[in-house]
Amino acid sequence: MKTIDFYFDFSSPYGYFAAEQIENLAAKHGATVNWHPILLGVIFKANGAAPAANPVKWDYAINDFNRSARFYGLPYRHPAPFPIATQHAARAFYWAATQDMERAKNLALALYRAYFVAGQDISSQETVLEIADASGWDRTALAAALASDEIKAALKTACETAIARRVYGSPFFLIGDEGFFGADRLPHVEAWLANFDRGGF
Amino acid sequence: MKTIDFYFDFSSPYGYFAAEQIENLAAKHGATVNWHPILLGVIFKANGAAPAANPVKWDYAINDFNRSARFYGLPYRHPAPFPIATQHAARAFYWAATQDMERAKNLALALYRAYFVAGQDISSQETVLEIADASGWDRTALAAALASDEIKAALKTACETAIARRVYGSPFFLIGDEGFFGADRLPHVEAWLANFDRGGF
Repeated sequence: MKTIDFYFDFSSPYGYFAAEQIENLAAKHGATVNWHPILLGVIFKANGAAPAANPVKWDYAINDFNRSARFYGLPYRHPAPFPIATQHAARAFYWAATQDMERAKNLALALYRAYFVAGQDISSQETVLEIADASGWDRTALAAALASDEIKAALKTACETAIARRVYGSPFFLIGDEGFFGADRLPHVEAWLANFDRGGF
Repeated sequence: MKTIDFYFDFSSPYGYFAAEQIENLAAKHGATVNWHPILLGVIFKANGAAPAANPVKWDYAINDFNRSARFYGLPYRHPAPFPIATQHAARAFYWAATQDMERAKNLALALYRAYFVAGQDISSQETVLEIADASGWDRTALAAALASDEIKAALKTACETAIARRVYGSPFFLIGDEGFFGADRLPHVEAWLANFDRGGF
């Protein structure tokens, strides 16, 4: 059973690029993907490592976001504000996942596209509710779920599991114990799946 | 005239992976490559950014070095000590480059392979001299050059130029003003060359 655990933050451009590609990549190799939105802020705090605030790297990153989108053939408009808090988006996913996993993945893509293509600020709970509503989800039920202990606990558990599994950024893929960090490691993920029967490459 | 400026530190595994590939990649697109060994320590100091000392990331990196080597089909044995000071190796390149650029690139590859395959500690001037000697260079002339102001200045200038051009890691590629960081950006470099006539992609 080939399974990819896909960890991502909804504020991560490379997470968005990966989300648009991972299901097709997995399907080519008969693998399934478990999606796990997490909060990078929680991960960084646990690791004692914030991303370096270096203007040279930052300028490079902004250019690389845009160039990577063109490289992958994906639409991208670098959003402002950036980055943003993504707990509402992540919790909306975990609630949707309790009902229909495939539609929950589509909701995740809708949230990513809302932020990185349409420029909607998905840190706003209201915006998350609107996007879910437009995707055919029950807005009232989702609003209740976002305030529920159960859904808050689901996100908390996902972050704790990510930390325990040594996830340290977004996107991060795990095939068993083998970790892959970054959309630029998708070719490694694919090679690993292609060599899965002999334990990777 | 398609030119790639290739900045690297001799202690950088991803620099080694890139060095083994960049000339073939460039030749496919009629581009030439200028090699610029630099000292990452100098670059990090100028940017106020040392690499984060995070054990989770570090363990990931060691695994990724080895996996990347397998992915590229290159030999690799993670060396100890690591990282190391590389001013002698870099200066040896700049001296060799004053005499024969193609052979100087081969010396750079010999130094990389000595460190990352054979496990030789190329922070030692003696080891650098031995490797150059085995590659047919004049050991006595090189020993004199390594102590010369001219060759020390060549490395210093390379580091200063790298900082001015916003190079912040190894390997780093520049095509004109377009910067590409990391061996994992070689596909971007290649796409840029393929679209060179219309200003990149």
